[in-house]
Amino acid sequence: MKVGLIGLGKMGFNLGQNLLEHGHEVVAYDVNADAVAELGTKGAAGAASLAELVSKLDTPRIAWIMVPHQFVDSVIAELTPLLSKGDIVIEAGNSHYKESIRRHGELEQSGIYYLDAGTSGGMEGARNGACYMIGGDEEAWVVAEPLFRDTSVENGYLYAGKSGSGHFLKMVHNGIEYGMMAAIGEGFEVLEKSGYDFDFEQVARVWNNGSVIRSWLMELVERAFSKDAKLDDIKGVMHSSGEGRWTLETAFDLQAATPVIAMSLLMRYRSLETDTFTGKVVAALRNEFGGHAVEKN
Amino acid sequence: MKVGLIGLGKMGFNLGQNLLEHGHEVVAYDVNADAVAELGTKGAAGAASLAELVSKLDTPRIAWIMVPHQFVDSVIAELTPLLSKGDIVIEAGNSHYKESIRRHGELEQSGIYYLDAGTSGGMEGARNGACYMIGGDEEAWVVAEPLFRDTSVENGYLYAGKSGSGHFLKMVHNGIEYGMMAAIGEGFEVLEKSGYDFDFEQVARVWNNGSVIRSWLMELVERAFSKDAKLDDIKGVMHSSGEGRWTLETAFDLQAATPVIAMSLLMRYRSLETDTFTGKVVAALRNEFGGHAVEKN
Amino acid sequence: MKVGLIGLGKMGFNLGQNLLEHGHEVVAYDVNADAVAELGTKGAAGAASLAELVSKLDTPRIAWIMVPHQFVDSVIAELTPLLSKGDIVIEAGNSHYKESIRRHGELEQSGIYYLDAGTSGGMEGARNGACYMIGGDEEAWVVAEPLFRDTSVENGYLYAGKSGSGHFLKMVHNGIEYGMMAAIGEGFEVLEKSGYDFDFEQVARVWNNGSVIRSWLMELVERAFSKDAKLDDIKGVMHSSGEGRWTLETAFDLQAATPVIAMSLLMRYRSLETDTFTGKVVAALRNEFGGHAVEKN
Amino acid sequence: MKVGLIGLGKMGFNLGQNLLEHGHEVVAYDVNADAVAELGTKGAAGAASLAELVSKLDTPRIAWIMVPHQFVDSVIAELTPLLSKGDIVIEAGNSHYKESIRRHGELEQSGIYYLDAGTSGGMEGARNGACYMIGGDEEAWVVAEPLFRDTSVENGYLYAGKSGSGHFLKMVHNGIEYGMMAAIGEGFEVLEKSGYDFDFEQVARVWNNGSVIRSWLMELVERAFSKDAKLDDIKGVMHSSGEGRWTLETAFDLQAATPVIAMSLLMRYRSLETDTFTGKVVAALRNEFGGHAVEKN
Repeated sequence: MKVGLIGLGKMGFNLGQNLLEHGHEVVAYDVNADAVAELGTKGAAGAASLAELVSKLDTPRIAWIMVPHQFVDSVIAELTPLLSKGDIVIEAGNSHYKESIRRHGELEQSGIYYLDAGTSGGMEGARNGACYMIGGDEEAWVVAEPLFRDTSVENGYLYAGKSGSGHFLKMVHNGIEYGMMAAIGEGFEVLEKSGYDFDFEQVARVWNNGSVIRSWLMELVERAFSKDAKLDDIKGVMHSSGEGRWTLETAFDLQAATPVIAMSLLMRYRSLETDTFTGKVVAALRNEFGGHAVEKN
Repeated sequence: MKVGLIGLGKMGFNLGQNLLEHGHEVVAYDVNADAVAELGTKGAAGAASLAELVSKLDTPRIAWIMVPHQFVDSVIAELTPLLSKGDIVIEAGNSHYKESIRRHGELEQSGIYYLDAGTSGGMEGARNGACYMIGGDEEAWVVAEPLFRDTSVENGYLYAGKSGSGHFLKMVHNGIEYGMMAAIGEGFEVLEKSGYDFDFEQVARVWNNGSVIRSWLMELVERAFSKDAKLDDIKGVMHSSGEGRWTLETAFDLQAATPVIAMSLLMRYRSLETDTFTGKVVAALRNEFGGHAVEKN
Repeated sequence: MKVGLIGLGKMGFNLGQNLLEHGHEVVAYDVNADAVAELGTKGAAGAASLAELVSKLDTPRIAWIMVPHQFVDSVIAELTPLLSKGDIVIEAGNSHYKESIRRHGELEQSGIYYLDAGTSGGMEGARNGACYMIGGDEEAWVVAEPLFRDTSVENGYLYAGKSGSGHFLKMVHNGIEYGMMAAIGEGFEVLEKSGYDFDFEQVARVWNNGSVIRSWLMELVERAFSKDAKLDDIKGVMHSSGEGRWTLETAFDLQAATPVIAMSLLMRYRSLETDTFTGKVVAALRNEFGGHAVEKN
Repeated sequence: MKVGLIGLGKMGFNLGQNLLEHGHEVVAYDVNADAVAELGTKGAAGAASLAELVSKLDTPRIAWIMVPHQFVDSVIAELTPLLSKGDIVIEAGNSHYKESIRRHGELEQSGIYYLDAGTSGGMEGARNGACYMIGGDEEAWVVAEPLFRDTSVENGYLYAGKSGSGHFLKMVHNGIEYGMMAAIGEGFEVLEKSGYDFDFEQVARVWNNGSVIRSWLMELVERAFSKDAKLDDIKGVMHSSGEGRWTLETAFDLQAATPVIAMSLLMRYRSLETDTFTGKVVAALRNEFGGHAVEKN
């Protein structure tokens, strides 16, 4: 089927190829004309503007937005007047589910359907088979389902229910991911500090074959250690892009106790610093009451 | 090759079948004669005592101990005088690595080799292909390797180095497992408390196909939900059998910060109670300074 | 000096008495006319409406709002048109500092000053000497300072700077309070579970005399145990009223690692339940891979 | 009364002065003869050996040991043969309560009483009035009580019961202390990262006057900020001397959930490093699945 693809970054470009390979007609737009041209060489029709993109779609039009979350609102604002009742907007980036609910409500005013699709699997997934969690209007879902079915891995998509449920699932998925990654990291930290001379790549390899903790993340650990046996080249600075925090804020909303996800987020923040004010206060206190020496700057 | 198998519980019995199917000769002993007899029907030779078991082995004898960790020392005490220099003891239960180092040192006095083998994969693994992390004498390792190779999944065993390294790896594996399980549990708790009506089995299914958090544990989650859609039948009481705690105590020894594993353990303890004294103290305090109502027993 | 006091709840009524005893003229208003009448018996002038209250004040008028935070906006909305340029609004409840900044900005449009005052010390403090952290317009501060000085304990007030800083300090104060209370509670939980037969009141008493952890909270613990030696009568359900959560959300904004405050909040949520879905998932998983028995509902 | 004081370090020397000022006769011994001589100038009798110290005491002899915990056993080993049935040993350092129980049991063989005394209040407390938590033989307690009563602050000592209870209380006291200090530190970290320009000394000052979190620790914070307004001179490296860890290990023994104390300990370990292997693994993983840039060493 024909789909307008808006956003050809790391994820969008790979998705475009994936769609094309599965026989879909892709009309592509990006602020970067080179990316549009490049996807053109793979068979996509290009558009120099959102208006052109819309003009090249058949009704009901399907516009798939795959842009960084800070640009979603401006894309939708420009797109909405170009669309008609019955058209379908898919937003498959990492938006907060409350934003998706809001956008759904706004587009509903114009009779435009809105599907919020959480996408997992990273760049490889977008290219060769992603994992989708989709929420929103069921009428639109039955129309758009082939796009998700064809670009996902087998059994790799789920229509989860009403608006927001797709991004809610993706948010929680990422929260779990934070916790799993931290657990794995902590385990290797204990190995690294032990007196044993473990070959970390081999450890990850054996843990990926038959153990309880075998997982795609452990496969990626194995791959990372195969490139840099002790990770000497990189710093342990852990940035974050929002979903872990959102999971926690949602847990607060729901009064759910999620200590493991909480710690995985807070240790990311801790990793951004080499020293902390908390530590200074505690060190100063130990000095005040116990005469324990402080380390000086 | 011929191996003496001591302990035919959930894990040992399955391992015995696994060994037999791979052409090894198994001489089996258990305090429960019925289990010995039953493994006999699969082709194992039975022994009514450790002495009989040892007498039926060829030198260098290989004795594989698979008993609950509280019985390992007494089995070794009885076994040692029956063995000779050059014989090999394999201990494949969940022993603390420091215990394994101690036992290795003790058997070394008699010239007996000692391999500490951490085993993962649960009962299914023992039956159809386990995951082994093995430490101890390299001279013994080269002799015993076929037993591990044949009963593990492909690429599912690792000789990790000197004594204790096998159980150390298994301990840390379980620490990671604690953290991963808690992360997964917390994620589903957030889903369960949300206003959405998620089908948890379907969620686990989609997360197992293409997502970043796909893993064997998530497959088991899917299986659990397929049996009991909301887990209504079971209580959230999380028992623990030691390795998580050992991981943390080791982290303390090494001054390694492992907050995620720590929280996963402490929440297990928390789950053993319906009310806490901590809570009583905090509730009483809130009442004292702020007049906040307490809930009465 | 003359002050309009809006809100005669637990805190406001006590504050009213405190103000009167220090020679200030209080014009009091509350939706509950009985409270107004009762403070009248202590010497306050009563008002049947905000309009009447404002009419009884001298310019620059000072209106001190002490109502639950959900009512602050409606009180301000009704109050603002009654006030004039140069008048001063003090809001001394537990508002979020961002709300205080917003309100300050809105009143600034009308030339009305706005002070955000965090108040600590509980009901006793309001009655006999509170602790104030005040932010907002310095021109208003120099006028209103006597009200704070006279109703606080010695050295118990601080003008902290620009708008929001008062409630920011109070928020963080409460975050620290969450952590301190949890630490104390956990300590007594360890005592309670130990084999020793400690007299908790005596323990709190000795810890309040000469120890490093002597504190007002520990005095309150002592008092609580003096009334109920084992806290048998109360449940360990820990409710929360927002500031701990706000502290954490602010920590997320600032990417500050605050694990102790985080855990103290999450354990409050945990205390609201007798069983958890996290626990069910983990128990189900342990059963799936290890055959560990689950407890049935 | 007459007491032998063994160990004249920071704590012991101050205690010696305290005892002398309250009219007790002190026979002092330390490996450092200068310290013995200096306490001699305050009125203590000196001893050049433990044998000499014992010889100068009256029966029932009271020997008060105040040495670093790693030396306690060797002091007791040397002391025991010098003592007689009915003599009393007081150990007032930071020993693990299980060690105290063991020592009590060993001395009991010789009919020697053993009191385990946890001491809080730091050096100031030892000098001017400490806080004591004492466990052990009640027959010995009634004899030795005046020493504790006279050198503690008012109401600052507690006979807590059987052997080990004194050091158990002190251990838990320190666990609470860890949590309280971390909570305070985290609060100031949030203040420090905020856009506000808080005067931390003034903040600590106001929090010490009328607030819920007023405490001796907050007074020490105020003092620390009075010396170094932003703690610019010191590093946030938080060492630890054991009791926090012991509290956690005891919590594990008792299956008590103590997340706040746990996090306060783990963040101390975290503060010993500027980078972590956990962080490297997580950063590598984010790069592998999402193409997120890593920071290079």
